[in-house]
Amino acid sequence: MPDPIVFSGGPSGGWRVMRQSAVHGEELPPVARLDKGAGKLGDASWTLSGVASNLRYTMAAEKRVLDATPSVLGRPGATRAALIPITKSAAWWGMAQDERRTVLEDQSRHIAIGSDYLSVISRQLVHCRDQPGARFDFLTWFEFAPADEPRFDELLAKLRATAEWRFVEHEVELRLEKVT
Amino acid sequence: MPDPIVFSGGPSGGWRVMRQSAVHGEELPPVARLDKGAGKLGDASWTLSGVASNLRYTMAAEKRVLDATPSVLGRPGATRAALIPITKSAAWWGMAQDERRTVLEDQSRHIAIGSDYLSVISRQLVHCRDQPGARFDFLTWFEFAPADEPRFDELLAKLRATAEWRFVEHEVELRLEKVT
Repeated sequence: MPDPIVFSGGPSGGWRVMRQSAVHGEELPPVARLDKGAGKLGDASWTLSGVASNLRYTMAAEKRVLDATPSVLGRPGATRAALIPITKSAAWWGMAQDERRTVLEDQSRHIAIGSDYLSVISRQLVHCRDQPGARFDFLTWFEFAPADEPRFDELLAKLRATAEWRFVEHEVELRLEKVT
Repeated sequence: MPDPIVFSGGPSGGWRVMRQSAVHGEELPPVARLDKGAGKLGDASWTLSGVASNLRYTMAAEKRVLDATPSVLGRPGATRAALIPITKSAAWWGMAQDERRTVLEDQSRHIAIGSDYLSVISRQLVHCRDQPGARFDFLTWFEFAPADEPRFDELLAKLRATAEWRFVEHEVELRLEKVT
């Protein structure tokens, strides 16, 4: 059974918030630090939690590419990170599976674009849509070295320009630096 | 955001338990009644909860068939029901999307078989896999008239004989009668 992954925003935690902004919709209350763990930090102002889950759109051939370059979290040089919580619209969730796949990959090349950055950007997709009361559908997490931050910006710019992103109605970004 | 659907097993509730058994794996503690609602009954011995969520395998053409015969819950004549919680194996969840779809529909005709019974058997799929600590992946709920119970048995027998069901490792069945 999936373990919870809890992000705690507040005065303490292992990541310092360098920048925090709303890309679409409402901002999260500003915080100085973020913690990523299995439980809530006691002094947290807010928490976001979810679980790692099964693949939703990835085909077997694409999975083989992803499996060949597994995302390793906590690499010593990966001292920058980003937390990007996202909610998609009712129109997105009302589509059938093949219609969502068509937008995500045939039109937007989401999996292909992501695959180009696997070697430098580690990522983890945390699902929370199926938890009652969740404010977001996903909490996307990325870790990378400071020198690769321009490549991460490039990845984000490509994804945000896709047809898929027209279905994103709430998106918040926290850019983070590891506390040493 | 999805509302929770809570099943409470215990001494009270709107459905009397006629039969209760484990098809695969561990039994749930026996109860006299079951309640289906938005919250937990105070005297419940156990609860199972989840949310209605988006389609996972259904294609647009199949969705049009389903949408043409919507599942209406609470029909006056539908005084029989079944709750069938299910957990699939790690092998199932480890497959890519197209591999799971191949087993579910190309090999097992799950959606096509279910479509044949839409007019007499109302159903609701409650997802709980993405909730931390959930014991089941899905809570499947069915309502039908007493005269259609043989057709429901036929539906279950067909599904349980499929390739998909080889991935079911925990399955419990409660057969229910509406308390009047």
